[in-house]
Amino acid sequence: MNIPGLSSRMRDLQASPIREILTVIDRPGMISFAGGLPAAQSFPEMPDNIPAKYLQYGPSEGEPELREEVARMLCCRGLQCTGDQVLILSGSQQGIDLVAKLMIEQGSSIAIEYPTYLAALQVFGLYGASYQSLNSLDRDTSLAYVIPTFQNPTGHCYGESERLALARECDRHGVTLFEDDPYYDLVYENVCRTPVCSMVRKARWIYQGSFSKSLCPGLRLGYMVCSPDLLPFLTRLKQAADLHSNRISQYFVMRSLTDPGYDDRISGLQNFYRARRDIFQQNLHRHLGNQASWSVPPGGLFFWLTLNPELTVDMKSLFNRAIENNVAFMPGEYFFPETQARDPTMRLNFSHAGEEDIDRGLATLAQLISKQS
Amino acid sequence: MNIPGLSSRMRDLQASPIREILTVIDRPGMISFAGGLPAAQSFPEMPDNIPAKYLQYGPSEGEPELREEVARMLCCRGLQCTGDQVLILSGSQQGIDLVAKLMIEQGSSIAIEYPTYLAALQVFGLYGASYQSLNSLDRDTSLAYVIPTFQNPTGHCYGESERLALARECDRHGVTLFEDDPYYDLVYENVCRTPVCSMVRKARWIYQGSFSKSLCPGLRLGYMVCSPDLLPFLTRLKQAADLHSNRISQYFVMRSLTDPGYDDRISGLQNFYRARRDIFQQNLHRHLGNQASWSVPPGGLFFWLTLNPELTVDMKSLFNRAIENNVAFMPGEYFFPETQARDPTMRLNFSHAGEEDIDRGLATLAQLISKQS
Repeated sequence: MNIPGLSSRMRDLQASPIREILTVIDRPGMISFAGGLPAAQSFPEMPDNIPAKYLQYGPSEGEPELREEVARMLCCRGLQCTGDQVLILSGSQQGIDLVAKLMIEQGSSIAIEYPTYLAALQVFGLYGASYQSLNSLDRDTSLAYVIPTFQNPTGHCYGESERLALARECDRHGVTLFEDDPYYDLVYENVCRTPVCSMVRKARWIYQGSFSKSLCPGLRLGYMVCSPDLLPFLTRLKQAADLHSNRISQYFVMRSLTDPGYDDRISGLQNFYRARRDIFQQNLHRHLGNQASWSVPPGGLFFWLTLNPELTVDMKSLFNRAIENNVAFMPGEYFFPETQARDPTMRLNFSHAGEEDIDRGLATLAQLISKQS
Repeated sequence: MNIPGLSSRMRDLQASPIREILTVIDRPGMISFAGGLPAAQSFPEMPDNIPAKYLQYGPSEGEPELREEVARMLCCRGLQCTGDQVLILSGSQQGIDLVAKLMIEQGSSIAIEYPTYLAALQVFGLYGASYQSLNSLDRDTSLAYVIPTFQNPTGHCYGESERLALARECDRHGVTLFEDDPYYDLVYENVCRTPVCSMVRKARWIYQGSFSKSLCPGLRLGYMVCSPDLLPFLTRLKQAADLHSNRISQYFVMRSLTDPGYDDRISGLQNFYRARRDIFQQNLHRHLGNQASWSVPPGGLFFWLTLNPELTVDMKSLFNRAIENNVAFMPGEYFFPETQARDPTMRLNFSHAGEEDIDRGLATLAQLISKQS
């Protein structure tokens, strides 16, 4: 079985016989000499009474209950899907690696936003991608990778018509849409967040999200949902990558998602980050109002600043001076595939530093920019 | 920077600027607007008072304390290394994927044991490997992948001279040695288990192990240690694959390894599995003594049976009949890269089923083999 548009590498990825066999060994009454399962009696005691089954090897797709819960959550976002379309990931970075393996080979053209998530560029590059703009999709585009909701690094959120237009373009050219949506829950204004994947009619699509922002990053857990015909391939790739994701994290996330307090938790998170963002905005305005321009992000974790063109700032030396003065930021150039000359830009995270540090850090940056220009 | 013998894919894998920046942001006094760290105040309460830092993003290489602990453990095995040579993995399956990305491209020749771990074959094949025997290493061999200690599926344990000979051959031809050692702790006889990697003098080497057998699989945690020149590449690949491994599992493993009762735990595990193996051996002898031959494995989790050549058993149909009768096993052919005709073999796991099931399951298998032949 193969599907046009997949990487040629996929031709050689057979379904693992272990997978096939593991699907029958859970049948009641089955005596299994098949797997390499350690004896459950031998497992150490786990904190907080994690049910014993989560200590054993588990399904590559993830815990069935968690997959159902994710499907329910995505249906609420407007993306209709069922639990068996869901693949649990060891963080959404893994999803990027799996999709790259699935779709990209030397010279594949990937349509991206300029700028975009730098660790996605790193992975796509590893498999040999070249890049094109989202405005020029055509039949030779292998994949469109987008972060429509509170984009990283710009914070931009696509409006409804922009979402619809992208979905139509993917349909028109048969381009597979890969929508990365880690910041969905971190919304501070009333904006459209409906997944673009839900608007696609004919094209294949892959949508992924993360529990790193809504719960915590140390869990290393995310999820992916996709067109039904892609799922068997992605499942095999997931199995080859790490067999399955951490079950203790899956148990914890499942418990959190079904906790009656979960919605309150998310609202609390939004209020907390909105307040941080507003403090950051005030301090930005005060310290860098004459040196840079930006939009207030309606969600996510970042401000994206463009320094005024008349300031001839060397970003590398600004960065080094900032580090010497104990302030860190991300130079914007890293979020572009090429390192060609561009307006000097910077990505500033507003979620991590407290109020005093925000004030002091931005004041330092403003001073260093003044000195440099 | 590049090293001869690595996959051409590695040329395009730049060190991530995030990584470089993250190394400075932990400096005392640093205000970081650089990462995308969620605010630690926003994290949910974790069971069993897991220290808050483990809920945040962490280093790609793994927790420094755990890396030190692994290095100490490996020094005891005879493999001299330091904590900064250690990479924590999301299970040792991930190690296979990372090494395949590092070393294998279309047509690369990988020397393997026949038979060998089937999920390694799956991954190597995905990246375009072809295979050769370990007895014919030469300059064109990209990698030698071996499981010297309680091999999967055969249970074979290399003697000291076999280990030394392999190390010499790798040195002689400059072949990188990839030693997979997930069963080290599951030893039931007094046999040599010294890592072959410790005997290599000039060749590059990669050694990996797992906590799935000594603790439990649900943690999805393993480790890798390698020649210092390979580590930067593997670390970048690890970062591109999933940023870093689950920190809650790392915390738990760290606590377990440093627990004063850990050595007793491992002895207990060995006694438990040795008893299981002996019961399995008695039942095998009783039920299949006239139909198959095998060696008693000195460690690990598997018996490897070769059916008597005069029995003309069709393994596929035997397998299907066994499943119908609620007994599962692994047909041996899956552990070979090609599906050419071979002696009918089977891999039987002895760790999972209890005593009664072992008796009943093996009796059923014996009956089915009799009927078929």
